[in-house]
Amino acid sequence: MKESDKSLGVAVLGCGSVGSQVVRLLQEQAGDLAARVGAPVELVGVAVRRLDAAREVEVPEGLLTTDAAALVARDDVDLVVEVIGGIEPARGLILSALEHGASVVTANKALLAEDGPTLFEAAEKAGRDIYYEAAVAGAIPILRPLRESLAGDTVTRVLGIVNGTTNFILDKMDTSGAGFGDALQEAQDLGYAEADPTADVEGFDAAAKAAILASLAFHSRVTASDVHREGISEVTAADVASARDMDSVVKLLAICELRPGADGGEDAVAVRVHPAMIPRSHPLASVREAYNAVFVESEAAGQLMFYGPGAGGSPTASAVLGDLVTVARNRLAGTRGAGESAYAARAVLSMGESRTRYHVAIDVDDRAGVLATVALAFAEHDVSIQTVRQEGRGDDAQLVVVSHEATDAQLSATVAHLRTMDIVRDVTSVMRVEGVAE
Amino acid sequence: MKESDKSLGVAVLGCGSVGSQVVRLLQEQAGDLAARVGAPVELVGVAVRRLDAAREVEVPEGLLTTDAAALVARDDVDLVVEVIGGIEPARGLILSALEHGASVVTANKALLAEDGPTLFEAAEKAGRDIYYEAAVAGAIPILRPLRESLAGDTVTRVLGIVNGTTNFILDKMDTSGAGFGDALQEAQDLGYAEADPTADVEGFDAAAKAAILASLAFHSRVTASDVHREGISEVTAADVASARDMDSVVKLLAICELRPGADGGEDAVAVRVHPAMIPRSHPLASVREAYNAVFVESEAAGQLMFYGPGAGGSPTASAVLGDLVTVARNRLAGTRGAGESAYAARAVLSMGESRTRYHVAIDVDDRAGVLATVALAFAEHDVSIQTVRQEGRGDDAQLVVVSHEATDAQLSATVAHLRTMDIVRDVTSVMRVEGVAE
Ligand SMILES: NC(=O)c1ccc[n+]([C@@H]2O[C@H](COP(=O)([O-])OP(=O)(O)OC[C@H]3O[C@@H](n4cnc5c(N)ncnc54)[C@H](OP(=O)(O)O)[C@@H]3O)[C@@H](O)[C@H]2O)c1
Ligand SMILES: NC(=O)c1ccc[n+]([C@@H]2O[C@H](COP(=O)([O-])OP(=O)(O)OC[C@H]3O[C@@H](n4cnc5c(N)ncnc54)[C@H](OP(=O)(O)O)[C@@H]3O)[C@@H](O)[C@H]2O)c1
Repeated sequence: MKESDKSLGVAVLGCGSVGSQVVRLLQEQAGDLAARVGAPVELVGVAVRRLDAAREVEVPEGLLTTDAAALVARDDVDLVVEVIGGIEPARGLILSALEHGASVVTANKALLAEDGPTLFEAAEKAGRDIYYEAAVAGAIPILRPLRESLAGDTVTRVLGIVNGTTNFILDKMDTSGAGFGDALQEAQDLGYAEADPTADVEGFDAAAKAAILASLAFHSRVTASDVHREGISEVTAADVASARDMDSVVKLLAICELRPGADGGEDAVAVRVHPAMIPRSHPLASVREAYNAVFVESEAAGQLMFYGPGAGGSPTASAVLGDLVTVARNRLAGTRGAGESAYAARAVLSMGESRTRYHVAIDVDDRAGVLATVALAFAEHDVSIQTVRQEGRGDDAQLVVVSHEATDAQLSATVAHLRTMDIVRDVTSVMRVEGVAE
Repeated sequence: MKESDKSLGVAVLGCGSVGSQVVRLLQEQAGDLAARVGAPVELVGVAVRRLDAAREVEVPEGLLTTDAAALVARDDVDLVVEVIGGIEPARGLILSALEHGASVVTANKALLAEDGPTLFEAAEKAGRDIYYEAAVAGAIPILRPLRESLAGDTVTRVLGIVNGTTNFILDKMDTSGAGFGDALQEAQDLGYAEADPTADVEGFDAAAKAAILASLAFHSRVTASDVHREGISEVTAADVASARDMDSVVKLLAICELRPGADGGEDAVAVRVHPAMIPRSHPLASVREAYNAVFVESEAAGQLMFYGPGAGGSPTASAVLGDLVTVARNRLAGTRGAGESAYAARAVLSMGESRTRYHVAIDVDDRAGVLATVALAFAEHDVSIQTVRQEGRGDDAQLVVVSHEATDAQLSATVAHLRTMDIVRDVTSVMRVEGVAE
C-alpha cells in the first residue's frame, strides 16, 4: 500500500488501563502503523475526567482535555477510540463521533451488549465503521474470526471462558481446594479481582460478552438481557471436589448454542452463562489462572479454540490497535467493513426451554435399593440418567448421577423431590455438565 | 448489507478432497452466503483433470470441465478458487484469473511459499484480492489474525504445530512408546499419512507454512528456501523417552523469530522447522493426534494460541469459504483488502546464525569426575550449560545436559568432541528445546 501524505487524526477517549496503553502504542509504533495503514496515524487528543490524575503514559503536551464532546466533533478527528467504559457518556460520544464522520473503535462490552444495534445503525447511516474486538476476551482475536474467517461456515456452538477473574478463582479452588471466599480474597490481593467483584463474580461481564459472541456467531441480535446468567459465588469446595472425582473441572462458561426450534421449526439460539463441569481432557480445561479461551464448533471447520490473555491494559490495547489499523485502511480506501449481520434474526430461547446435562451428588443412607429409589425419582420428572455411581459406605455413602439433557425446571423438581426422601441425607452438589458429547 | 441483484460467479479449480467440499458448501449454504456477501454467489464451473472420476460431491450437470484455462478467462467468473495444488498449472491459472479480473482464493501453500510475491504483485497490478487462509493450518484462522488483528502490535515469535501427519506420529510415539517406523505405519493405515510421506515427514510441508507465517508476522518476504528444515524421521523412541523424563514432549515445530541483527543492527528474522522438546505445561504440548495449533507471542498481546483441525477437506473448505466471503464483499464494495505487507524487508538469518537451546543425553562411564569432564567439553565450544543431571548407575549411567542458546555449529562441534571421549559410551539423544524462557 502506498503511503498517503494526509495523516489520519485519532482521538482517544479515556486514558486509564487500556487508554494509556493505546496512547503508548500509538506513539511507539508510529512508523509501523503508518506503513501498515498506508498513511501516518496521528494522536490529536485524549479525553479524560481529571486533567491532573497520574497516568501510566506521558501524554504529549496539550493533548489532554476534559471536553470529550468537543474532541469527537473536531474536523481533524478521523478515528475515535472509546475506552471510557459504561453506558453514558460513552454511547453519546460514539454516536456523535459517527455523526461527525469519524470511524470508531471501542472496547465497551457493556454498551455493546446493552445497545449494540443503536451503534451499528448509526455507523451504517454515517457510512463509517465501528469495530470492537477488544470487547470480548481482550487480546484474543475472536470476533474477527467469527465474523470473517467463519463467514462461509455454520457455527453451531461457542463455549467461552471469557472472564479472567472468575477463571482465576475457580482455578485456585481446583488447585488448592480453597473455598470461594478464600480464593476471591487471593484474587483481590493479587489484583485479579476488584474491590467490588460483583460484575465478574456474578457473571454480568461474561453475560455481556456472551451476547456479543452469540450475535456474531448466529447472525442475530442478542442482548445482555437475553442471557441466562448464574455466577460462581455459590460454587462450593464440595462442587469442585466432586468435579475432580469425575476427572473434571469447574469453569464459568459463556455458552451460545444453535438449537432446533420448539416444534421442529426454525433453529433458535440459546445463550447462557453459568458454572459447569467440563472433562479435564477438554481443551478448555487447561485454561489456567486469568487466561481466557473461546472454543468454537462449526459444521465444516469442526472444533477450534482461541486462547490468550483476556484482559490487561496492554493486551486489550493490542486488540484496539488491530481494529484501528483496519478502520484506518477502510477509510483511506473510501470503504467500510461488513457492518452488523443480523439477517438470520433467530429467536432466543428462554432458559426454561434450554436443555443441559446435570451432575448431582447425593448423600444417601447405605441401604439396599437406594440406587433404584433415587433413579425412580429422576424418572418421575422425566430426567433420564446417563450414569450413576455409588461411592463410599455407611455415613459416607454417596450417589453421583449424571443426567442426559433436561430442562432447569425438570432438574429443580427432581432435586426438590430428592430432598424430601428419607433415604437422602443431603444433595451436596448440583452442577451442569458441558463439553461432553450427548 | 443490502443484497445486490447481480450474482457473483465462482469457478472452482480442482474437485478433490478440498474442492469437493468447497462445491458442497457453496450449494448447501447458498442462502447464508448470499446474505453474508450481499449478493448471490453462483458456482459457474469446476475444473478437473478427469471428467469421469468418482467425486465426493455431485457437481451440477454441465459445470465440470477439463479446460481450466478457458474457465478462468470467462467473463462471468468473478471469483476463482484454486484447489489443484502444486506449482503448475496452478500458478499460471491464478495469474490468468487475476489478469482477467477475477479475485482469487487459494489453499496452495507450496506455491505461495515458493513464489508468493509473483502472485501478490499480479493481484496488486490487477487491483484484485488473493486470499489464502486455508494454506496454513487448515481450518484454523491464523493468517487473518496475524495480518489484521495483530496489525497494531509487534509479533516477536510464532511457534506452530502446522503438520497433522507428523503430530499424529509423534503423539503415537509419546503415548505408546512406539518407534518412528511403527508410528508412521499406523498413521498410513489410518489415512493420516500418504503412501509417500516425504513432504510431511521431512518437514517440507511445515517449511512452506513457516515461510508464509514468517512473511505475515514480520512484514518481510520469506520463501521456503529461507527455512532451515529438519524432519522427524530421525526422532527415536529414545529421544521421546528422554523428553518424557524431562516432563517434555517432542513436537515438530515451525518456528519464526524476530532476532537482534548480527552486530546490534536491525532486527532480523529466523525461520526453521525441526523437532524440539517442549515442556508438557506449554499450551502446544497438549495438541494431540492430527490437530494443529499456532502459538504467537507479541509485545502487547502477550501469548496467544490458535487451535483446530489442520487439514481435511471440510475444515479446509471452511477456511476457503471464509476468504471467499471476504473477497466477494470487497468486490461488491469495489475495493480490495490489504495486499502484501513486506515493508519491513527484514533480513533472514541463516541457521548458522540462529541460536537454540539443546537437550543432550550422554551414556557415560560411572566414574568420579565424569560430569566435570563433560561440562568442560561443552565449555570448550562456548556452549554454556543451564542444567546437567546425572542419572542411573553403572552401565546405565547417563548425563542429561540442557544448554543455554548456542549455534548449530557450536553444538555439532561439542557432540563430535563428546563422541571422541573415552568416558562417553554414546550420545543417545540430541534435541532442540523450545517453549522455555531463557
Ligand atoms: N482493563 C481491561 O483489562 C479491559 C479489558 C477489555 C475491555 N476493557 C474495556 O475497556 C474500557 C476501559 O477500561 P479501563 O480498564 O481502561 O477503564 P479505566 O482504567 O477505569 O479508565 C477509564 C478512563 O476513562 C476516563 N473517563 C471516565 N469518565 C470520563 C468522561 N466522562 N469523559 C472523559 N473521560 C472519562 C477516565 O479518566 P480519568 O483517568 O481522568 O479518571 C479514565 O482515564 C471499558 O469499556 C472496559 O470494559 C477493559
Ligand atoms: N487436503 C487437505 O487437507 C488440505 C489442507 C490444506 C490445504 N490443502 C491444499 O489444497 C490444495 C488441494 O488439495 P487436495 O487435497 O484437495 O488435492 P486432491 O484431492 O489431490 O485434488 C486435486 C484436484 O485437482 C484436480 N486437478 C489436478 N490437475 C489438474 C489440472 N491440470 N487441471 C484441472 N484440475 C486438476 C484433480 O482432478 P481429478 O479429481 O480429476 O484428478 C483434483 O480434483 C493443495 O494445494 C493442498 O496443499 C489441502
